[in-house]
Amino acid sequence: MSVTVFFAAGEDRWPDYRDHLSAAIAEAGVNARVVLDATPEEADYIVFAPGGPIEDFRPYRNAKAVLNLWAGVENIVGNATLTQPLCRMVDPALTAGMVEWVTGHVLRHHLGMDVHILGQNGIWRGGIAPPIASERPVAILGLGELGRACGRALAGLGFPVMGWSRTAKAVPGLDCHAKEEGLRHVLSRAEIAVLLLPLTAETDTILNADRIASMPRGAIIINPGRGALIDDDALLAALDAGQIGHATLDVFREEPLPPSHPFWQHPKITVTPHIASETRGSSASRVIAENIRRGEAGESFLYLVDRRQGY
Amino acid sequence: MSVTVFFAAGEDRWPDYRDHLSAAIAEAGVNARVVLDATPEEADYIVFAPGGPIEDFRPYRNAKAVLNLWAGVENIVGNATLTQPLCRMVDPALTAGMVEWVTGHVLRHHLGMDVHILGQNGIWRGGIAPPIASERPVAILGLGELGRACGRALAGLGFPVMGWSRTAKAVPGLDCHAKEEGLRHVLSRAEIAVLLLPLTAETDTILNADRIASMPRGAIIINPGRGALIDDDALLAALDAGQIGHATLDVFREEPLPPSHPFWQHPKITVTPHIASETRGSSASRVIAENIRRGEAGESFLYLVDRRQGY
Repeated sequence: MSVTVFFAAGEDRWPDYRDHLSAAIAEAGVNARVVLDATPEEADYIVFAPGGPIEDFRPYRNAKAVLNLWAGVENIVGNATLTQPLCRMVDPALTAGMVEWVTGHVLRHHLGMDVHILGQNGIWRGGIAPPIASERPVAILGLGELGRACGRALAGLGFPVMGWSRTAKAVPGLDCHAKEEGLRHVLSRAEIAVLLLPLTAETDTILNADRIASMPRGAIIINPGRGALIDDDALLAALDAGQIGHATLDVFREEPLPPSHPFWQHPKITVTPHIASETRGSSASRVIAENIRRGEAGESFLYLVDRRQGY
Repeated sequence: MSVTVFFAAGEDRWPDYRDHLSAAIAEAGVNARVVLDATPEEADYIVFAPGGPIEDFRPYRNAKAVLNLWAGVENIVGNATLTQPLCRMVDPALTAGMVEWVTGHVLRHHLGMDVHILGQNGIWRGGIAPPIASERPVAILGLGELGRACGRALAGLGFPVMGWSRTAKAVPGLDCHAKEEGLRHVLSRAEIAVLLLPLTAETDTILNADRIASMPRGAIIINPGRGALIDDDALLAALDAGQIGHATLDVFREEPLPPSHPFWQHPKITVTPHIASETRGSSASRVIAENIRRGEAGESFLYLVDRRQGY
């Protein structure tokens, strides 16, 4: 008997997944066909990404799980037609890529690299050694898989790393805080803040004008999380006032960021095009295959989303 | 009885050292006066940096050691008048700073940051995820204190790190090679090469036209070691031919690098002004104090230079 896996994640991603996915599921010992099109009744598993063919999940009454291709689930978790189990993607390559992007941009700001990259004009700007990492407090907001991995890497380089999450968590090597008073404590000390929170009703616009004003003057904001975590206008005002020294933003309320958006022109903002980390076909396919194997064996799914929490 | 420490490392550095040095020596339990000027007979220890007041060491016949302020000793080790023991600086803050600079610039090139830092023009350059670190071989040439520390940090981030030294060394986590055939092996596989060799007769112009040609096409060269390790003309030709993708250079044959030097104008070269790492008064003073304590106690000195090897 063959299992049908419906790849409902967009035709543009199909070339990167078709072979990887079939191979990974076969390797997991499941006899399956992976298809770009299926009738609702046929689909045993749905591989999902927003922008694909499914908006109404009700007809897919035989589907044992919806396997999200991305770490963030804010585009699907509120869908009232979804009653099937929903699993997030936790791709080891995505985590590795995020750690590299975050560590690289933290070091870029820590070292003041842009002065040199943008200033190759014959002027020898010596004698401005930055503090060493152990003198530069960094905050990671969000202590999920990605936040914890980034925090550990930065702590390994010597940065004093504070972590914040909505509910209390302990991460070895990080000075962890929670709740509203913990957020105030962490932001008031962070010379560099990295946003890796999921987007939920509680985290929407969490970095508002008040909280930005509570940070040390000249602090750096790095956002590879979700665009809506920040109040864009408050950020622009804080950059103009010198309260924030620079912002490197990888995610936006509208993507691609429109060419006319003021972020592009602001000298203290670096826009990167949602590349901090991407799910990669080869490694993500192995995660999906493992969940299909679990589903067929009657075992519990990995990375199951808690609908009430929203992630 | 008081020991006289002659600070022969330039008046411009004196403000950063005077208090730190006196405090560190006192803390080490030695009764000393640290002075910016001393008669040759008075000096029990000489704190040295090139460009200071001493060129002829013969009159300093009571000096028990010359304590170099810098990690590199190429400006003093060939001085025939020097018969006193010579010690290199191994400053923990200098090592930490170098690890941060090297890790930051390796990640900068690995992630392709410059495209975004230099291209804030409204063009959303998505979909160009770099390989992850585990797919990017990095070479560290030079496995002294700095090379080993940088290699460990990069391996900790997932890069496959090859190490090369003139004589065989083993560093946990690094794939180490030595001698001429080892250099060819390492360079032929390195997508990013970091130069952290001391400057000696054997390493002068070690990265010549032949060896540059042996690297993978588009490889990156990062030089925080010594300017004379590279054949400058061969590097420029290899950049123009696309053989080398980019060079980030912190050290030069002439410093400050003259404004008219072609390195400044080359679009594939980033010049940084010898800032990869600097000795810092607070931590370097503790290293000097420990060696003075050892000298007074009749113990062997730390970081003693082997004149025959040149470092």
